[in-house]
Amino acid sequence: MSTGIRVTPIGSIRTPYKTLDECPKGPDENNGKAKIELLPNYADGLLKLEAEEVDLLYWFDKAPRDQLRGVSPHDGIERGVFAMRSPHRPNPIALSRVKLLSISGNILTVSGMDCLDGTALLDIKPAPRKR
Amino acid sequence: MSTGIRVTPIGSIRTPYKTLDECPKGPDENNGKAKIELLPNYADGLLKLEAEEVDLLYWFDKAPRDQLRGVSPHDGIERGVFAMRSPHRPNPIALSRVKLLSISGNILTVSGMDCLDGTALLDIKPAPRKR
Repeated sequence: MSTGIRVTPIGSIRTPYKTLDECPKGPDENNGKAKIELLPNYADGLLKLEAEEVDLLYWFDKAPRDQLRGVSPHDGIERGVFAMRSPHRPNPIALSRVKLLSISGNILTVSGMDCLDGTALLDIKPAPRKR
Repeated sequence: MSTGIRVTPIGSIRTPYKTLDECPKGPDENNGKAKIELLPNYADGLLKLEAEEVDLLYWFDKAPRDQLRGVSPHDGIERGVFAMRSPHRPNPIALSRVKLLSISGNILTVSGMDCLDGTALLDIKPAPRKR
């Protein structure tokens, strides 16, 4: 097993939220739209992206990584970090499935995101078709 | 934006597949079961994990990272890497939603996975409840 793995931001997520207190708890299509700015050198990777939904992976760089338990803001119950989707986890890689509304060059418009403006984007994957 | 981010394996995924040729194309509950061996020091993070399904993030360490297009094995069509869930992508973080069958200490049993035996695990997240 490798002792460390390096990942590279491929773009950034633009939202209206400038502080953590402003961020909603979880992505929600009722929270307007967000822009995904892919770095121009990755734009060719969007060829034939026609999915209705995409899974976005992004990086919560302000999250503590040394917590193994937390209290959910939804119900006040203490759980392990792997029983929550909170950003407080050993590898604070966030995952949200959002609606893909449009693509223009290297910019994607998607349904509402919950992260800080400027959050580092790690990956875009088409969501599997619904069964 | 950060120029590099370091992630750490938190465990490994045990499958019957010892070579890439043996790996099925995509996770499938018809492909038996897989074991997730969380490193013991992370086991406390499983507290109250009761989800029926979990999203597993793992690392395709053998995948090329410099490709922006590829040909799907399903239909032979060339697409951008962000239009496919193939492991060939700038950050080869794989994502699979699988059924969580049981937990015993630091070992999870889940439905069939598609990765090599010993693949590095990066995260476990409970799947959102179905709407």
